[in-house]
Amino acid sequence: MGIFKDIESNVRGYCRAFPVVFRKAHNATLVDDQGKEYVDFLGGAGTLNYGHNNPEFKQALIDYIESDGITHGLDMHTEAKRDFLETFQSHILEPRGMDYKVQFTGPTGTNAVEAALKIARMNTGRQTIVSFTNGFHGVTQGAAAVTANGYYKKANGMPTTGVQFMPFDGYLGDFDTLKYFEKALEDGSSGLGHPAAVIVECIQGEGGLNVASAEWMRGLQALCRRHDMLLIVDDIQAGCGRSGTFFSFEEFDIQPDIITLSKSLGGYGLPMAVVLLKEKYDTWKPGEHNGTFRGNNHAFVTARRALETYWSDDRFATEVKHKAFLLKNRLKSIQARHAGDCKHKGRGIMQGLEFASGEVASEITELAFSRGLIIETSGSDDQVVKILTPLTIEEANLNKGLDILESCIDEVLAERLRVANAS
Amino acid sequence: MGIFKDIESNVRGYCRAFPVVFRKAHNATLVDDQGKEYVDFLGGAGTLNYGHNNPEFKQALIDYIESDGITHGLDMHTEAKRDFLETFQSHILEPRGMDYKVQFTGPTGTNAVEAALKIARMNTGRQTIVSFTNGFHGVTQGAAAVTANGYYKKANGMPTTGVQFMPFDGYLGDFDTLKYFEKALEDGSSGLGHPAAVIVECIQGEGGLNVASAEWMRGLQALCRRHDMLLIVDDIQAGCGRSGTFFSFEEFDIQPDIITLSKSLGGYGLPMAVVLLKEKYDTWKPGEHNGTFRGNNHAFVTARRALETYWSDDRFATEVKHKAFLLKNRLKSIQARHAGDCKHKGRGIMQGLEFASGEVASEITELAFSRGLIIETSGSDDQVVKILTPLTIEEANLNKGLDILESCIDEVLAERLRVANAS
Amino acid sequence: MGIFKDIESNVRGYCRAFPVVFRKAHNATLVDDQGKEYVDFLGGAGTLNYGHNNPEFKQALIDYIESDGITHGLDMHTEAKRDFLETFQSHILEPRGMDYKVQFTGPTGTNAVEAALKIARMNTGRQTIVSFTNGFHGVTQGAAAVTANGYYKKANGMPTTGVQFMPFDGYLGDFDTLKYFEKALEDGSSGLGHPAAVIVECIQGEGGLNVASAEWMRGLQALCRRHDMLLIVDDIQAGCGRSGTFFSFEEFDIQPDIITLSKSLGGYGLPMAVVLLKEKYDTWKPGEHNGTFRGNNHAFVTARRALETYWSDDRFATEVKHKAFLLKNRLKSIQARHAGDCKHKGRGIMQGLEFASGEVASEITELAFSRGLIIETSGSDDQVVKILTPLTIEEANLNKGLDILESCIDEVLAERLRVANAS
Amino acid sequence: MGIFKDIESNVRGYCRAFPVVFRKAHNATLVDDQGKEYVDFLGGAGTLNYGHNNPEFKQALIDYIESDGITHGLDMHTEAKRDFLETFQSHILEPRGMDYKVQFTGPTGTNAVEAALKIARMNTGRQTIVSFTNGFHGVTQGAAAVTANGYYKKANGMPTTGVQFMPFDGYLGDFDTLKYFEKALEDGSSGLGHPAAVIVECIQGEGGLNVASAEWMRGLQALCRRHDMLLIVDDIQAGCGRSGTFFSFEEFDIQPDIITLSKSLGGYGLPMAVVLLKEKYDTWKPGEHNGTFRGNNHAFVTARRALETYWSDDRFATEVKHKAFLLKNRLKSIQARHAGDCKHKGRGIMQGLEFASGEVASEITELAFSRGLIIETSGSDDQVVKILTPLTIEEANLNKGLDILESCIDEVLAERLRVANAS
Repeated sequence: MGIFKDIESNVRGYCRAFPVVFRKAHNATLVDDQGKEYVDFLGGAGTLNYGHNNPEFKQALIDYIESDGITHGLDMHTEAKRDFLETFQSHILEPRGMDYKVQFTGPTGTNAVEAALKIARMNTGRQTIVSFTNGFHGVTQGAAAVTANGYYKKANGMPTTGVQFMPFDGYLGDFDTLKYFEKALEDGSSGLGHPAAVIVECIQGEGGLNVASAEWMRGLQALCRRHDMLLIVDDIQAGCGRSGTFFSFEEFDIQPDIITLSKSLGGYGLPMAVVLLKEKYDTWKPGEHNGTFRGNNHAFVTARRALETYWSDDRFATEVKHKAFLLKNRLKSIQARHAGDCKHKGRGIMQGLEFASGEVASEITELAFSRGLIIETSGSDDQVVKILTPLTIEEANLNKGLDILESCIDEVLAERLRVANAS
Repeated sequence: MGIFKDIESNVRGYCRAFPVVFRKAHNATLVDDQGKEYVDFLGGAGTLNYGHNNPEFKQALIDYIESDGITHGLDMHTEAKRDFLETFQSHILEPRGMDYKVQFTGPTGTNAVEAALKIARMNTGRQTIVSFTNGFHGVTQGAAAVTANGYYKKANGMPTTGVQFMPFDGYLGDFDTLKYFEKALEDGSSGLGHPAAVIVECIQGEGGLNVASAEWMRGLQALCRRHDMLLIVDDIQAGCGRSGTFFSFEEFDIQPDIITLSKSLGGYGLPMAVVLLKEKYDTWKPGEHNGTFRGNNHAFVTARRALETYWSDDRFATEVKHKAFLLKNRLKSIQARHAGDCKHKGRGIMQGLEFASGEVASEITELAFSRGLIIETSGSDDQVVKILTPLTIEEANLNKGLDILESCIDEVLAERLRVANAS
Repeated sequence: MGIFKDIESNVRGYCRAFPVVFRKAHNATLVDDQGKEYVDFLGGAGTLNYGHNNPEFKQALIDYIESDGITHGLDMHTEAKRDFLETFQSHILEPRGMDYKVQFTGPTGTNAVEAALKIARMNTGRQTIVSFTNGFHGVTQGAAAVTANGYYKKANGMPTTGVQFMPFDGYLGDFDTLKYFEKALEDGSSGLGHPAAVIVECIQGEGGLNVASAEWMRGLQALCRRHDMLLIVDDIQAGCGRSGTFFSFEEFDIQPDIITLSKSLGGYGLPMAVVLLKEKYDTWKPGEHNGTFRGNNHAFVTARRALETYWSDDRFATEVKHKAFLLKNRLKSIQARHAGDCKHKGRGIMQGLEFASGEVASEITELAFSRGLIIETSGSDDQVVKILTPLTIEEANLNKGLDILESCIDEVLAERLRVANAS
Repeated sequence: MGIFKDIESNVRGYCRAFPVVFRKAHNATLVDDQGKEYVDFLGGAGTLNYGHNNPEFKQALIDYIESDGITHGLDMHTEAKRDFLETFQSHILEPRGMDYKVQFTGPTGTNAVEAALKIARMNTGRQTIVSFTNGFHGVTQGAAAVTANGYYKKANGMPTTGVQFMPFDGYLGDFDTLKYFEKALEDGSSGLGHPAAVIVECIQGEGGLNVASAEWMRGLQALCRRHDMLLIVDDIQAGCGRSGTFFSFEEFDIQPDIITLSKSLGGYGLPMAVVLLKEKYDTWKPGEHNGTFRGNNHAFVTARRALETYWSDDRFATEVKHKAFLLKNRLKSIQARHAGDCKHKGRGIMQGLEFASGEVASEITELAFSRGLIIETSGSDDQVVKILTPLTIEEANLNKGLDILESCIDEVLAERLRVANAS
């Protein structure tokens, strides 16, 4: 691994937690250059909902490459883009009664967020965006401003401009955080002014698997409507099926004004991002938000296949919900056995356990890695062990991973108890 | 094309100038869904230096995919990344005596620029960045702030913060713009303060093919050294061989503190971006600048092949210089025939002709498209017809494209003259 | 009044509520150019704590002028400044065990606030300031950013930068707002980051007479200490005796790091402002925060006399507390008679009644003006009728004013009830 | 002087250069507490155009105070304000054919500048302000952003937002700086965008007595008109007669959209400031830019007297021009004797000599102080010895001061020459 240490920047991160060199992968299994296999509960941080190198899409991609299909086409029309758009329309938007324009942005989540903030500001002529505690939306300057984590904010090196933070659902215990938000909106002297938009995740991935309730999300949308603010749902991590439905807010009966999607949208782990926006807000002039890689046609090919394969009917969603149910039961039972030491969080296949500190959580994930499980932490103190495994994971593999995880939790907590009692 | 009009956002741009649906492509040839072929003088806006679907890389990519090589791995170590790093080190950095760390950012140019600005601000504890007239660096908030074009700046919707613009080489005619910059730096009361860094392109692509001279670039580096500012060269469009050397500044005998690369780096048109930074500035903490698609392993595979294929010796560079020479002669002769109506600009295979207005330039490129040539305009008024064809273009195809272009120029200028005389 | 309408800017405000031309004034009595007298419950918005044209200071000022004492001296040493500083030290700081440096800023409250924010940012190297809902700190750009009122914020024309707002004491009903603040500070991912400082008023004057409790203020100071943030108390309106003690926080047993004073500091209604800062934060370099009128020597003369006259012993404070007690009783009794229609707010001689809307409050103050009482509204909707009469008001005059006020309240509320019942 | 050292903030500035305690003053003479007299060539940094304690205004002020005239009246109508407005209208605006609304801002120059920037931004809906190299406009956040001096900018602690700097007249030697400005405006990709307004001083006081030519100022106004930007002339230091006419731009035949005045406007050295704005830009809503001391009625009384005494006819202006002529001759002759070592700068009674460094200039002013002359330096390196004496200075006193100054220059330059030759 000398070359990494020699010339890769110190900014590298995940490779420090998982210090091996990976060679190949399939579905929820990673294989390193020694042939060792790992259960993947990381799932590309939400990018590999359909697993590594999904065989359904793989052949389509190879066929496309072999046919010399357009690989890079800026934002010109291509057959691959056309096919993706038609499939997205027929498989996702139409069945859900959703009427949105699709903007292809630079193929990263942060770029989609930047585009969403711009269009919200342009449409309203206002500059303040409301974001929430523990929200994560990216690290480019505009997205970092709406990202709550001080680690990224500090690295951004610029003061937060045009953003005010509000407490997320549950942040103030029993106190209804929307009441505070509403009061601040109605009170012309709250410091909030009249925001252009609200940006929110239904399930906060990086923030520690905090879940917004249906009631809260509906209340938030109502607030946006009453106060003429655009509602932006950042569904980059929680979208594309992870919650059990394609969008994480489907069961809430809301219609955000703007939606950002990325990560698993490309299907195969290939870079792709879109902004969905209601037609009346599609006031862009040609090329106003541009970028070289808006047309990642390989991703269009696999994205389309993903939609066709998994979203033609409700079988996949049902399967995801079933696995989420299994996961929840398992985690709840662990919580029950370690009452007070860990707490279940999340929903869909975006669940985890919160421990007393990032230190405890890290001990667990490090031990797990040594036993063949790749899993990361999240939350403000990295105190939440987070399961983001591919939705397509085989049940056996899921259980195998959970077994490793549970044993590690048991051992780490037991050892900690022993030390505590000894001292 | 109904689906595009129906649901693709109004932000779409290039597809308006080239309103067909493309199916496939090879080297400098694009083919639409009717089978019609086009000479590609656009080259993915600098992304397709090695041509569309370069056969050298294509098989490597297919092999990798077939072997279930890691596609998406966040920023974990993979064999593909290792191989890329080793090749980049051996083929690019070492032979040029360059000692840099490599940071994989989100796979877009704008993301690399954002990372560069952050690290410059963090290293210096200062916030002002100096950018230049007609500079283009991306459209996310931080990059848009250093982008000179008001079209993007306005869409950004936020006031320019922490950025001051200086005139680029030649912007003030015979007046040495570095003298102004130097005076402003030495004068504590110039309004400039003490900037953290300077960001500059050696050849301004979007800005209209303005070329910085070797002397000016050396002077700029000297100014940066004397005044303790970091020199960031944004080589996203002019790099990866387009100027006739791998980096656009190689013949200037300078060593920027930070270099951004993207576009053709991935080789095959796949999204990829890096920041090169001198070790002393690599003060990143793990994950401070993160992103889901930092590890686009498909791009690593093709990027490595591109380096091996084209940068193992100087044959490719020599070939590029030869084509650039042909191009220059041809454009100079057109200029000579239309004295006063067009002006040669640029260097390397990044040359073009400046016309009286964007209107004239657009007439030419529209006519060219109808005749099978894809070529775009650039510059503040889109008044520059810009040739960014793949460096690998066959000479016959290059000449074919130039023939079309020349005939269109002749006709448009003649018609304009006719109308002018008639009125 | 033609000249005002003809050439004074539309920005003029108070004169619209009190559309007469005033000629002279003494203590709490204003006289217009027709000789009509008005009871002054406005008190120069807190500037005339010692009444209009206080005879104790008047002669000192005339003597100083007649002696050709320095009127304008930039920030040079003058006898008048020396005498003021010695008196401020002996009469205010020393008796209270307060060890502060005195910075003379431009002679307006907003200028003192700007200086306070700068020095907090410079001392910490951080940029975020926390301000509170309904806080008012001035209208220059830096002060407007920490001012909560959207009316001023919008006029500022720039996005709020480097400021986050927190709910003031009582803003969330029974929910302890400091708990939210503390959680946000301890949570590295709350969006708040690590602020440089907190700026707060103990009694929010413009914000509608919201009162911070001693416990809350102590908790806030403790929070600042624990989290290494500077505590700035803006005592511009509530200071100089208005609360019943010289500083509004004296009975709270706290020691802010920075205190801003202005308004009644000059004693005679003359422009003057200071920043008090603990010595360790006095890291200013000479002239870093400058301004032409820092040395308003006339104000130094009257300011010193005010301190000598009213703060040599505790008689004045006792008198103020007595009047505050009378005021409270009277307002509480009005509240009792109009249960549900108005609510007592404030403390010291900074009390008032909150009505259902700004409309009701305005009707009352307009009626009051017609009957010879000058009184203004405050609060986010101007719904609070605010009594800021000179602390030196004669009890007879105070009662006269209160009689007028009470009769107006009775009539306006009765008429509103009549109309409501009729419809 | 113990008290100053003990408790006055380190920010104190002028008192360090002139370390005595002043007692009284008349016209251009200051007297310290030991009875020592000084010739005042500082003139309150432009505030004392009519001299210290001008006897013409003194009695009016005392009479007003004795009559209990309104001292502090917020922005209510008073007789003193009415009389000032009528006199300003009849003596200043009407005779010059100027049609402006008068806004009373907080009584400091920086506050007037902040108001001017706000109203420019609100009227245009744009945020960028263009300011010039060496411009000084104040130290509150908005004004500091348009101030060129890095010393204040750094203390401001926030990145410059919404401001771009352009080179002032003469900054680039023979190169016409307006050509650069114009090119940047016409070039949509210059980085400048479409500014809301330009703020400029006709004579840069703090910036080192740089003088804009009539041609340049007319060109600047024409540029503003062509590009729909507001022209703000900051006449705070150069206005009120200092240039030889009331406004510093009168002989240029221009009509700025907005003018800021302060310093000598109050006449007696009392805090006062106004913004003059063309009626169509007076779009303020009531109280949008407010402040406690907008109505400094003492200053209205003396300001009116100043207008009546000195601006009823052209005698005063003629006298000022005559003194400016004497001053210029004297300084030019000094320059001639020390060819190469000092250079004449400025116009009106705002002239000085530029030396090789701030060190030389300081030696001269220190020596001068020891000989009874108070004079300051300005410029980016404090290299300009600046004469800002009261316009009313007696010719004998003027000559006395110039004699001292000349002797100090001769001695300091001679000594420097001696040392240089010796080494």
